[in-house]
Amino acid sequence: MSAAAGDLNVSYRLLLGPGPSAVHPRVLRTMSTALVGYMDPEWFQLMDEEQALLRAVFQTKNSLTLPMSGTGSAGMETVFCNFVEPGDTVVIGCNGYFSDRMCEMAEIYGADVKRIEKPWGEVFTPEEIEAALKKHAPVKILAFVHAETSTGALQPLEGMGETAHRHGALLLVDCVTSLGGMPVRIDEWGIDVAYSATQKCLGCPPGLSPVTVSERASKVLHGRKSKVKNWYLDLTLIEKYWNKDRAYHHTPSTTLHYGFREGLRLVLEEGLEARWARHRATAEYLWGKMESLGLKLFVGEKHRLPSLATICIPDGVDDQDIRKKLLNTYNIDIAGGFGPLKGKIWRVGLMGFSSRRENVTLFSEALRELLPGRG
Amino acid sequence: MSAAAGDLNVSYRLLLGPGPSAVHPRVLRTMSTALVGYMDPEWFQLMDEEQALLRAVFQTKNSLTLPMSGTGSAGMETVFCNFVEPGDTVVIGCNGYFSDRMCEMAEIYGADVKRIEKPWGEVFTPEEIEAALKKHAPVKILAFVHAETSTGALQPLEGMGETAHRHGALLLVDCVTSLGGMPVRIDEWGIDVAYSATQKCLGCPPGLSPVTVSERASKVLHGRKSKVKNWYLDLTLIEKYWNKDRAYHHTPSTTLHYGFREGLRLVLEEGLEARWARHRATAEYLWGKMESLGLKLFVGEKHRLPSLATICIPDGVDDQDIRKKLLNTYNIDIAGGFGPLKGKIWRVGLMGFSSRRENVTLFSEALRELLPGRG
Repeated sequence: MSAAAGDLNVSYRLLLGPGPSAVHPRVLRTMSTALVGYMDPEWFQLMDEEQALLRAVFQTKNSLTLPMSGTGSAGMETVFCNFVEPGDTVVIGCNGYFSDRMCEMAEIYGADVKRIEKPWGEVFTPEEIEAALKKHAPVKILAFVHAETSTGALQPLEGMGETAHRHGALLLVDCVTSLGGMPVRIDEWGIDVAYSATQKCLGCPPGLSPVTVSERASKVLHGRKSKVKNWYLDLTLIEKYWNKDRAYHHTPSTTLHYGFREGLRLVLEEGLEARWARHRATAEYLWGKMESLGLKLFVGEKHRLPSLATICIPDGVDDQDIRKKLLNTYNIDIAGGFGPLKGKIWRVGLMGFSSRRENVTLFSEALRELLPGRG
Repeated sequence: MSAAAGDLNVSYRLLLGPGPSAVHPRVLRTMSTALVGYMDPEWFQLMDEEQALLRAVFQTKNSLTLPMSGTGSAGMETVFCNFVEPGDTVVIGCNGYFSDRMCEMAEIYGADVKRIEKPWGEVFTPEEIEAALKKHAPVKILAFVHAETSTGALQPLEGMGETAHRHGALLLVDCVTSLGGMPVRIDEWGIDVAYSATQKCLGCPPGLSPVTVSERASKVLHGRKSKVKNWYLDLTLIEKYWNKDRAYHHTPSTTLHYGFREGLRLVLEEGLEARWARHRATAEYLWGKMESLGLKLFVGEKHRLPSLATICIPDGVDDQDIRKKLLNTYNIDIAGGFGPLKGKIWRVGLMGFSSRRENVTLFSEALRELLPGRG
């Protein structure tokens, strides 16, 4: 039982997959700062600042806004374990891999899950949502993935909070691949519960999952009849460390928080509107390049994500072969599809610090060389 | 909803609390490395290396040995959610805060918890353990905290695996404050399930929780009648990403793994025996210094942790006042007690890179100045 390994010596990759995206150098540098203790008054001040920055990025006044100590999947589990009680009706819009995962998690915590379905890559209309709320009334939670990382489709959310509330439901949204890269307006859109991840459009390493909870949802949380069936993700315990009580729950990852605070500062220094415009412009540049190579985008322009493009793999082209060459020859990391889209699409992320014109140039020139007879 | 915050600018603290301990500069530096994707073959190689290093540190051949994507508390929840099914009898040795937390978690997953109790700071004898196993037979899991961070007591584990197995039980151990700082011999001691944390004697930032599972326990896991009631910590899913399947579960925290791999390399470069001896020598140096100041250690020498000293606060001395002065004037971070030990003890960690003679000198000289009339 002995072991040894050499110095960390990884290739420098251009990260154009579904996350992690490239981490901004300022964030990487900040994480080499020596740690302080988790009860240090200076640490508490950093927590307060991190929450204030995060509220601004979420466009919310919600006091219960904090980063959970896990990746985006932990964020997803956080919202289902805290807001679902056995027997609750939860309507979930199913049009991709991550909404399927939502169903799985909601069921673990005893939800009566009502799936409303659309083919992968399509989105739901307000009429379809209204109909589902009527059909399954009373509904406790209405849940959607805002930006579906498995398909590249963007679910419009404007007005959906009002609809959910009219039917007595909470609106719960997965913002993993949207926050920081396109408009996410928690308060304006009436979203009650949302979670995201740090390694996508926020440009930080994976490991934290920002969560925000409205006053309305907070009342539901504190009115639970049963205890939360998950200790590590129990918001009723965790909020007491993030509020004035400062009651110890678990040791936060000092280093990841250092980095995340810096990443949030970068988002707000750039400005939300400017950042969204940058993501949009870079995506449009990519779409044009792909069309000039004769490649089709999987999702129609109206519902296409700016943060993640899904490109149809042309007939006769070997998915794995191209991706291997992109990685080994060009140091470019993109992803394939999963489930029904396996072998049919490439997923190209342009998120956070990866959302840059020069990255599009490198990727499209590589494809031009790898796909013979194009352009 | 705007917000701003300045450059990260924290005081340089000497971390002598219960963790995080000081992170080795090589670990901090490694974490500023640019990220690779989570399906990159180079990443898979790093995962394999990390597992091999971790097995060496755990002194085990267990193939199911990996770092979970959360802090030590996530490690604790991992073992209870995966190995407990509703109605299982779980005997837990209760002699501190973290064994109480074990009971709470085991109950969440439906265990019939049988507490065996000792006053905080004391440990269990083989006879007491044998008696509990007989009394509560059949017992599925026998659980102990190896190094109790709330009291400073070390539970001897030699021979306990044999006892547990003779009674048909699995032995489950919390090694959060022991791994890397004192002998933890998973295979030799017959420990079936163990978890730890990166921010204590392993000298890394918080955020990962190393877990190891014996073949015997692995069979129990795969023979479960019910599904694991926790998605994020479900080992039956997670092991498929860490083994040859490489099946995506959640995005690992690249940066924390870079740092942890470096931390494990440092442990093995120093050598386990040498590292344990260093922790022991630094602790003995502290014990002597405290005695020379007329201070008493809370735990008798036989069961005293080398990684965390608990010092009785003398009558008439204000716990909070001294700790505030230590932090603000001396930049030294130590912790107070909790529960029944609140205001009665100080907890002084000498773990990982914090376990150094010069740190003992700085701390004891600070105390000499702050406690009038001593030494």
